[in-house]
Amino acid sequence: MKFYDNPPRSEWSDICRRPAKSAVELHAVVRGVIEDVRKRGDDAVRDYEQRFDKAALSDLAVSADEIKAAEAAVSDELKEAIHLAAANISRFHEAQRFQPVRVETCRGIVCEQRSVPIEKVGLYIPGGTAPLFSTVLMLAIPARIAGCSDIVLCTPPRPDGSCNPAVVYAAHYAGVTRIYKIGGAQAIAAMALGTASVPRVDKIFGPGNQYVVAAKQLVSLEDVAIDMPAGPSEVEVIADSTSIPQFVAADLLSQAEHGVDSQVVLVSDDRAMVDRVLAAIDEQLPRLPRREIAEAALANSKAVLLQSRPEMTAFTNTYAPEHLVIATEQYDDIASGVTHAGSVFLGPWSCESAGDYASGTNHTLPTKGYARAYSGLCLDSFMRKMTLQHLSPAGVESIGRAVELMAAAEGLDAHKNAMTVRMDYIKQHKTEDNK
Amino acid sequence: MKFYDNPPRSEWSDICRRPAKSAVELHAVVRGVIEDVRKRGDDAVRDYEQRFDKAALSDLAVSADEIKAAEAAVSDELKEAIHLAAANISRFHEAQRFQPVRVETCRGIVCEQRSVPIEKVGLYIPGGTAPLFSTVLMLAIPARIAGCSDIVLCTPPRPDGSCNPAVVYAAHYAGVTRIYKIGGAQAIAAMALGTASVPRVDKIFGPGNQYVVAAKQLVSLEDVAIDMPAGPSEVEVIADSTSIPQFVAADLLSQAEHGVDSQVVLVSDDRAMVDRVLAAIDEQLPRLPRREIAEAALANSKAVLLQSRPEMTAFTNTYAPEHLVIATEQYDDIASGVTHAGSVFLGPWSCESAGDYASGTNHTLPTKGYARAYSGLCLDSFMRKMTLQHLSPAGVESIGRAVELMAAAEGLDAHKNAMTVRMDYIKQHKTEDNK
Repeated sequence: MKFYDNPPRSEWSDICRRPAKSAVELHAVVRGVIEDVRKRGDDAVRDYEQRFDKAALSDLAVSADEIKAAEAAVSDELKEAIHLAAANISRFHEAQRFQPVRVETCRGIVCEQRSVPIEKVGLYIPGGTAPLFSTVLMLAIPARIAGCSDIVLCTPPRPDGSCNPAVVYAAHYAGVTRIYKIGGAQAIAAMALGTASVPRVDKIFGPGNQYVVAAKQLVSLEDVAIDMPAGPSEVEVIADSTSIPQFVAADLLSQAEHGVDSQVVLVSDDRAMVDRVLAAIDEQLPRLPRREIAEAALANSKAVLLQSRPEMTAFTNTYAPEHLVIATEQYDDIASGVTHAGSVFLGPWSCESAGDYASGTNHTLPTKGYARAYSGLCLDSFMRKMTLQHLSPAGVESIGRAVELMAAAEGLDAHKNAMTVRMDYIKQHKTEDNK
Repeated sequence: MKFYDNPPRSEWSDICRRPAKSAVELHAVVRGVIEDVRKRGDDAVRDYEQRFDKAALSDLAVSADEIKAAEAAVSDELKEAIHLAAANISRFHEAQRFQPVRVETCRGIVCEQRSVPIEKVGLYIPGGTAPLFSTVLMLAIPARIAGCSDIVLCTPPRPDGSCNPAVVYAAHYAGVTRIYKIGGAQAIAAMALGTASVPRVDKIFGPGNQYVVAAKQLVSLEDVAIDMPAGPSEVEVIADSTSIPQFVAADLLSQAEHGVDSQVVLVSDDRAMVDRVLAAIDEQLPRLPRREIAEAALANSKAVLLQSRPEMTAFTNTYAPEHLVIATEQYDDIASGVTHAGSVFLGPWSCESAGDYASGTNHTLPTKGYARAYSGLCLDSFMRKMTLQHLSPAGVESIGRAVELMAAAEGLDAHKNAMTVRMDYIKQHKTEDNK
């Protein structure tokens, strides 16, 4: 880890800068895949599956028999763990239900805000070394609670044409309506455009490699909504003299094992604690199966020594981490000052992996500083809000003249006229009533 | 208007298709502007202002004196109208405040969801023929209520270097912190990247021409968040035998005057009403100052005759209009069935222009069918949600084993270890306590 000893504020934004790697340079390649799927549909998807996943597929959908086989292949122990995690995730996301808003803004005018589910959602789950069945839960459970009617999931098949059983089991358990054996940019294209097999969806969610990220960006420019932009995963851990060094080390390493580009930042106001954490990392690292990945990630990561708790809070808001672990005995003052973070873990017992799997919070979170503007996934992400308004004739009288004036001042006379015809109608009928 | 007489459902999606015009083709031009602003900052912005707005600017910010001058230039009558509109918009958006969520998901684990303002927001207000001071209110008021600390607004100057007084007045009144005389793609670039004069913002809001839309798309791929994608403005009016034809005609025309590409759709289950509305359009149209624009828009617009109220509801969900006016005496059954619309206007007295200016709802809404996946602007758009979680040692015991199993099954042993070190620590201390 690179050590920064009380860096001046002028250097913070440099310390907080993420590698500039962008998915934009892949747009040309990925655009080709999207156009091919637009033209040739399922045939194009099958060709890409053959080429990239080495899988020869006839049917792209996972069959009922395959779901049964997956169920048999997952151990009871793992199933129970998945059920426990699902219960906690359900409880927290159920509690996020939106209460409709209804206000009489002025005499005769009632404005409402209602929430409705997004009808068709598409979930993407990457394949590769780590079969992310936990991400299946994080995407499918809120979609089901929101009331989305079509919940489609794409995940790349293995060369034998099957999908990871835990992914299939979790998808079926969480309420996914259809599972497809499709990966990469072709999966995003299929869900964005629709093919004979795959329905077109309104919004696409989920992580993926840089081709998937680029494809999501491109389809978001024209066809469908996406959850959020994505970069490598990140954690910042705040430690002080009350922290338990082997916990802090384990949390930093659990982020570092994700990938060589993972971002790991230790922030402390206690130099002795920094040394103890570094020693604990050295002790834990050799025992990790993914130590080479973790070592590479740590080589690029940072330990920042600061003077005070307010300084640590301010630095955190500059960095805007995806995950923030406040691994100190007292955490309330820091937690109440932090505005820029995806998800926050309070105190020594709240490790990031608790939230990654089973505490109930969502683990799909804004990376790369996007926590300045984006929320993590929540029930809202699967719903949309719609406003409604009702004016009575009294409402027309309340704002009619103001609308006429404003519309005229904007040069929009037909807008003005829509109010004028109503005001005239009311006047005329009042006169008639008085006759 | 093109008339569709009971079209079969198989034709609905064709009828509902918007013109395919896309901002993507402008990306190359706009990318040049963005890169120039990245390199040369304010100098580039000044050059583009000279070239596109014919304005020679020294200072890009609107000064306190200019704000005073704008205040003097706006009539008292218009000021009062702006104040009334602002009061209603404030009331409705204040009522949207988020109530924090706090749940004990299982023994020893508390999960929270909090809402925090986005710190720095950038608002764009187009110039041109219609000075949209109403849009200033729709963007700046929720930003102020959300608690955004920097509310920056860019709007193109006139050739004499001044900005429209009503726009400046509304911005100052609604709580904008800094107003800049910058338009077009250079305004979006300046807010996304920051220059010596203009602060870098976290999220950019507001309408604009196709260059502005393309610039927002491009910066959203790498730098900042944006409110939503944008297309031409749209209205669908549902009319039945109880509707008042001159009201319906006025509402259709108020949309048609926006631009030649405006989308106007009349849906009815009553053929006689369609004829009466068309006659009322012919009567009102000649009196409109923007009749040429409205005529061109009407040439591309559609009247659709359907059999029943459920059919009208289903057609509406297929079209997913930005604005939906249910101009019928009974509207509850249709309103409760509509899920895909930006903002809904209930009954004969609720004209779109009420919501465009002063009822209290926001007029920045999803166009082009985006109402299937996007909400209109609301208080949420200016805030982000953050989750927090606290585990006690009992919480570690509740989910520790499940997290270990799931992490191991995903091949992420350092994730598992972060839980294991805590479980071991608890066991060890219990043993010690028992000694």
